[in-house]
Amino acid sequence: MSEGEFDLIARIRRRIAVRDDVALGIGDDCALLAPPPGMQLAVTMDTLNAGVHFPADTAPADIGWKALAVNLSDLAAMGAQPAWCTLALSLPQADAAWLEAFCDGFFALAQQHGIALVGGDTTRGPLSIGIAAHGFVEPGMALRRDGARAGDEVWVSGTLGDAAGALAQWQAGAAIAPPLRARLDRPTPRVALGRALRGIASACIDVSDGLLADLAHITRASGVGADIEADALPASDALRETFAIDAMRRLQATGGDDYELCFTAPASRREAVQALAARLRLPLARIGRIVAGNGVHCAGLGPVVPGYQHFA
Amino acid sequence: MSEGEFDLIARIRRRIAVRDDVALGIGDDCALLAPPPGMQLAVTMDTLNAGVHFPADTAPADIGWKALAVNLSDLAAMGAQPAWCTLALSLPQADAAWLEAFCDGFFALAQQHGIALVGGDTTRGPLSIGIAAHGFVEPGMALRRDGARAGDEVWVSGTLGDAAGALAQWQAGAAIAPPLRARLDRPTPRVALGRALRGIASACIDVSDGLLADLAHITRASGVGADIEADALPASDALRETFAIDAMRRLQATGGDDYELCFTAPASRREAVQALAARLRLPLARIGRIVAGNGVHCAGLGPVVPGYQHFA
Repeated sequence: MSEGEFDLIARIRRRIAVRDDVALGIGDDCALLAPPPGMQLAVTMDTLNAGVHFPADTAPADIGWKALAVNLSDLAAMGAQPAWCTLALSLPQADAAWLEAFCDGFFALAQQHGIALVGGDTTRGPLSIGIAAHGFVEPGMALRRDGARAGDEVWVSGTLGDAAGALAQWQAGAAIAPPLRARLDRPTPRVALGRALRGIASACIDVSDGLLADLAHITRASGVGADIEADALPASDALRETFAIDAMRRLQATGGDDYELCFTAPASRREAVQALAARLRLPLARIGRIVAGNGVHCAGLGPVVPGYQHFA
Repeated sequence: MSEGEFDLIARIRRRIAVRDDVALGIGDDCALLAPPPGMQLAVTMDTLNAGVHFPADTAPADIGWKALAVNLSDLAAMGAQPAWCTLALSLPQADAAWLEAFCDGFFALAQQHGIALVGGDTTRGPLSIGIAAHGFVEPGMALRRDGARAGDEVWVSGTLGDAAGALAQWQAGAAIAPPLRARLDRPTPRVALGRALRGIASACIDVSDGLLADLAHITRASGVGADIEADALPASDALRETFAIDAMRRLQATGGDDYELCFTAPASRREAVQALAARLRLPLARIGRIVAGNGVHCAGLGPVVPGYQHFA
């Protein structure tokens, strides 16, 4: 079914949540928004391209979910509260059924986090989804990459390697274990964790390119090194059952797309972190320590390529 | 020349302007920004795809300029002061020379308007440039589409049809008149005009899809109609010299990509508008009148397709 650009926009508008701080939403040259007094605005923008960021056979509802999830994950990694987003959707053709399914996934996640879609555009082109997401954080409370100090402990939420495990199976043409596929297609942005880590974590990043690569962003920004134990990396049952131990460790250490949070905290805050894990019912694994020096060293892991780079 | 994603980002970072309200720019999961107290935030996001929004042979510096210009134009159309932007760049391959040229155009325009690039991403994919732009406007002072009232006069800045004239020549395989090509490749966002129209204009939009189509957005949002005189539409000398009168009128009325402002104002503000034209050294043409009813009627023009629609 084909329809015009404005019909597509009308389909999207019907789904949008209401927020008091949106003075003017979709339908003018700009959205007009009222940031809360005294708060900093956290802004991120991530694009997903078909065949690059998700397999071409990904369900449109999962594409909608994931495109928003990766942006919410960036807000989570800063400790920001999600508020508004804009959506730039490039579609090869106007397909109402595709768009409705995309919206199902997108707005299911948007509703969970109370984020309002306030603008954007739909254009004709190769399938691509760009989202800019906005959130709020108190000045001085954001979780940056440059606050890790020697002696801090390194933590990671949830489990690692699941999304990369699904992708490895997909690339091998194998049947994909459903729990792994779910982690690839519907990542969970750790927004509540990010908020709760304000005042506890010294640095934080989300695991999008692979743990070693993302932790290296923290060590580089902070001017420190990190010693990680491969045995301490958390694995899901599905990953353990699907891969041999060496392959599993590589997926955990270098696989992208998990969207867990990797963070550092002073050793004195260990109990506070453990209490958070209990309160949020989210496992938080202590995987190593920040040290003087530079680079990320992972004991118990063979030679690896540290993480995904576009154009590498 | 090919290089990695982080080298590309480093190339971009070297060019960025400093603003006091950017607490944290490119290089973390989010930018951290300090909106000025009491101001509304105006947010827009527009994407340009190669072959759809610009001819494939467009110079990279012009692509950089235009991608930012179309977003600044949206801020202008709201009367907002540009502040920050994010850039999502999809490139088929990492090409340092291409990126440096793109940055030449992008940052030349960014500098003119004091807008800081604060984040975004570079990904591999078909050439596409997505930008989210942020500006400030006093509450209640934004130029919306829904404020036109019967009796208001309709105005347009600069000249119309130049960009569409260039595109028509390009599509015909003809040599493109340089003044027209310049208007297609390097549109001028009317930021100063938009700011100056606060308190004068009753409604405003930028001419991106074609005058009749864009003015119809105003009449629909405002619940009014508009009567326009084709003879009153402003034309450049280059357009007059290049096209016969009928073709010229069609380009002026329906051609997109001029990024002039079309606005309405009470007849009582006619002298204020004319004074603005003199102060800004920018011609402002009175092209018609808002009337009761609906639709845009253009006297002196044959049957036309009203404007560009994706997927139409």
